[in-house]
Amino acid sequence: MNNIKVIVAGPRGKMGKEALNMIQKQSTLSLVACIDRKNEGLKVKDIEGLPNFDAMIYTDAAHCLSEVEADVLIDLTTPENGYKHTKLALEHSVRPVVGTTGFTAEQLSELTTLAEEKRLGAVIAPNFAIGAVLMMQFSKWAAKHFPEVEIIEKHHDQKLDAPSGTAVKTAELIKEVRESHKQGHEDEAETLQGARGADVEGMRIHSMRLPGLVAHQEVVFGGLGETLTVKHDSIHRESFMSGVKLAAERVMDLDVLVYGLEHLLD
Amino acid sequence: MNNIKVIVAGPRGKMGKEALNMIQKQSTLSLVACIDRKNEGLKVKDIEGLPNFDAMIYTDAAHCLSEVEADVLIDLTTPENGYKHTKLALEHSVRPVVGTTGFTAEQLSELTTLAEEKRLGAVIAPNFAIGAVLMMQFSKWAAKHFPEVEIIEKHHDQKLDAPSGTAVKTAELIKEVRESHKQGHEDEAETLQGARGADVEGMRIHSMRLPGLVAHQEVVFGGLGETLTVKHDSIHRESFMSGVKLAAERVMDLDVLVYGLEHLLD
Amino acid sequence: MNNIKVIVAGPRGKMGKEALNMIQKQSTLSLVACIDRKNEGLKVKDIEGLPNFDAMIYTDAAHCLSEVEADVLIDLTTPENGYKHTKLALEHSVRPVVGTTGFTAEQLSELTTLAEEKRLGAVIAPNFAIGAVLMMQFSKWAAKHFPEVEIIEKHHDQKLDAPSGTAVKTAELIKEVRESHKQGHEDEAETLQGARGADVEGMRIHSMRLPGLVAHQEVVFGGLGETLTVKHDSIHRESFMSGVKLAAERVMDLDVLVYGLEHLLD
Amino acid sequence: MNNIKVIVAGPRGKMGKEALNMIQKQSTLSLVACIDRKNEGLKVKDIEGLPNFDAMIYTDAAHCLSEVEADVLIDLTTPENGYKHTKLALEHSVRPVVGTTGFTAEQLSELTTLAEEKRLGAVIAPNFAIGAVLMMQFSKWAAKHFPEVEIIEKHHDQKLDAPSGTAVKTAELIKEVRESHKQGHEDEAETLQGARGADVEGMRIHSMRLPGLVAHQEVVFGGLGETLTVKHDSIHRESFMSGVKLAAERVMDLDVLVYGLEHLLD
Repeated sequence: MNNIKVIVAGPRGKMGKEALNMIQKQSTLSLVACIDRKNEGLKVKDIEGLPNFDAMIYTDAAHCLSEVEADVLIDLTTPENGYKHTKLALEHSVRPVVGTTGFTAEQLSELTTLAEEKRLGAVIAPNFAIGAVLMMQFSKWAAKHFPEVEIIEKHHDQKLDAPSGTAVKTAELIKEVRESHKQGHEDEAETLQGARGADVEGMRIHSMRLPGLVAHQEVVFGGLGETLTVKHDSIHRESFMSGVKLAAERVMDLDVLVYGLEHLLD
Repeated sequence: MNNIKVIVAGPRGKMGKEALNMIQKQSTLSLVACIDRKNEGLKVKDIEGLPNFDAMIYTDAAHCLSEVEADVLIDLTTPENGYKHTKLALEHSVRPVVGTTGFTAEQLSELTTLAEEKRLGAVIAPNFAIGAVLMMQFSKWAAKHFPEVEIIEKHHDQKLDAPSGTAVKTAELIKEVRESHKQGHEDEAETLQGARGADVEGMRIHSMRLPGLVAHQEVVFGGLGETLTVKHDSIHRESFMSGVKLAAERVMDLDVLVYGLEHLLD
Repeated sequence: MNNIKVIVAGPRGKMGKEALNMIQKQSTLSLVACIDRKNEGLKVKDIEGLPNFDAMIYTDAAHCLSEVEADVLIDLTTPENGYKHTKLALEHSVRPVVGTTGFTAEQLSELTTLAEEKRLGAVIAPNFAIGAVLMMQFSKWAAKHFPEVEIIEKHHDQKLDAPSGTAVKTAELIKEVRESHKQGHEDEAETLQGARGADVEGMRIHSMRLPGLVAHQEVVFGGLGETLTVKHDSIHRESFMSGVKLAAERVMDLDVLVYGLEHLLD
Repeated sequence: MNNIKVIVAGPRGKMGKEALNMIQKQSTLSLVACIDRKNEGLKVKDIEGLPNFDAMIYTDAAHCLSEVEADVLIDLTTPENGYKHTKLALEHSVRPVVGTTGFTAEQLSELTTLAEEKRLGAVIAPNFAIGAVLMMQFSKWAAKHFPEVEIIEKHHDQKLDAPSGTAVKTAELIKEVRESHKQGHEDEAETLQGARGADVEGMRIHSMRLPGLVAHQEVVFGGLGETLTVKHDSIHRESFMSGVKLAAERVMDLDVLVYGLEHLLD
């Protein structure tokens, strides 16, 4: 596939800007339009801070999808708008690629049925960082053979929640293959409360917060005389763009809705 | 499978001793005999340094395999003896589990045919450390999506060769999915020779040797704004025994010869 | 100092055996006697598992110190016996080198006075692992410039207490130079209890417990755009012996009691 | 010292901009002027991309130093201009803080004498990243006790030279306390050339280059049964600014020229 015509929804957001930068560097993708909450009738290059594209900006998604000939809609907006855009895209025979964790099961079910009826590919992904997705897949695999596992995630000190969503998601994936059991010595005791971290069915999760960190996670598996560690370090949101690019290319060969980047990472 | 009857060949070697210790702790495996170069007619428990087993020691492998009813032969001897023992085992309908890197392609081919004729499972593995094997499998998978990769392996300072066999094997597996290409800046220059490590089709391998290390390897994959690392730390040869145990159990369900532990690690 | 005559107390304990092995490899140290709870009148080489020394074993410490001409007593027994031996050694003009965390402040004060009166060197150290002691000294130094710090210590899963004594000791050293303050975002919240670890005046300590680990600690300091990490990995108790050797050599040049190996590590 | 009046030379460079941002956040430092190659007579806030300061810009350093009352000159220009500015500053009784590796021994000697005559503090530093400077100081200290050491530095794949300047500088500092000797097994052999890295008096340096990395270094010391690691990770040039701030504050209490940030990091 050499020239995939792409519409980007949310071009002025942090992720949207990264997507435009990524498309600019790719020969396989062409930007044909953007969907934005404002700036109707302007071109992308007219907006300060956006790259030099001639593509037109539309505020009405249906209008955009009717008027512009496109292959793929990359949606990097909110769950609410993302859902509307995804539905509209499928109805206009444009394949959606959506980054969100916010769709409900009902919405996913409805969109899956719609894609099936239309025999159109669609990719909805909670996480587009290929490295993070592989870390989770490796962890699930490793846990089959090493059921003793702890997670340490490290983030900048402005993060509000602990543990991180990725750490919780990793633990959930591991739970699918690991039987719940207590880890550590059966009589172990914390002389300082919290030292052993959070407990998820016996697995321990530790959250470090320091300036100078960005977003890092290590999953450590212990066995007799050996440990196996899978580690992901993300220092910039451009790390999500290789996943967006992959999804935009692969969605052209799909005729169903795929939920989760891992299904494209064979 | 609850009571697999096991013969161990090479019980006094480093790996053989570990195997006996492992069997002693397992309820699924029972030691029924040992094949040794000496000590004919003694029991295992008569040998200083070996665990308290009543199993008899034989110096003649054919004799042992004829007389003792066994399910599996675990061979931890030399390539030469291992080959003979594997063949004899198959002929006596005993499933072989062999740790060696030393068989020739001809020998492997002959043993594969023999196992097929006998419809008997057999496992021959160059590496029984599950952690190391998973590290290599993860690396091969990651390299499909991250073709920029470097390996750093760290060993104790009594090691003679650099890089390690595992590092070379890892690079070979990665080569199966990664197109050969130069890494780093196209004009990069070493101001001190060797700084950029060994070059394997553009991949770089670095070998650290220090006292206080045992056997460690990190495979680092770089992408835009992110790195993904797979790391294995082995501090004791007992780390090989989980793989031996797995092979001894799984070989009972096989009816062909399997080369490489990775095929048992789904 | 080329031939320091050494008495070892506690030769059959784990640390005592390591000390004998260490002395055997050194040209600077000679074993002249051992103090043991039993085996009066035997030689070291008569005891199974001990190296081939002709040195005599005494059960009575005072008798040993009176009869044998020695420079240094290396005591690796219990706090109770260690205290008695240290006092006796000073009274017999033998310099004590003692590994213990168990002396009371009164005992330390008394021994310090005794060493001063006798103008004899003495070394009492809670930790003889030079690497661990340096890690703690570096951490104290770094904390002056990087007051945001977290500790992660990793041990085998048979350890009973969390956090480790070394982690607590490290935090105490850091407290000497770091003003108490909350770390992380002021509104941060644990969605899983314990995720942020134990809290020591705002510093966080995390304890990982897995098979395949031995004794490891990382102290991570965060600043604007950078982190600085000090890490110690100990895989064998022989790591304590370089500190014992250093103390036995340096104590010859001292004329006071020194508490803590760090004072010998300039 | 609560209100140090600062002139910044080189305000539009990468480091100069970071310095202006840093000063804006500090209550202890006030910007009173800038020295630039152009923009005479403008204010800092008139220049696009610079923060909102009223401070005037001068193209003539002597004119600036005569007219503006200042305590400290922070120079982040070239070695050539930096030398001129430093000399002028001292002649005008303004304390210079200069980030450069480019001064000759003669220039340093001349400036040292000038500072002494004027009884004025001055700080000239090849590296203002406190974390990197501490890493080097810790390494020098550790090498006294662990003479077996290897360095691995990791940088983004657009870096031209290998090894990095910091790695070479670290090795030079270690050389001051470590006797030159071969490391690794005396018969070790590279089966792939370069695997053992660059050789600096027996120490090995390894250079990794991958996308997704920024600037990282690990110095690993090996001893019997233990390793000690000092690691620095820098992800943004703002990491240099804590050192610039420290130097600007400390220089006020100095009456001599100090070369190297390490002398301010007690």
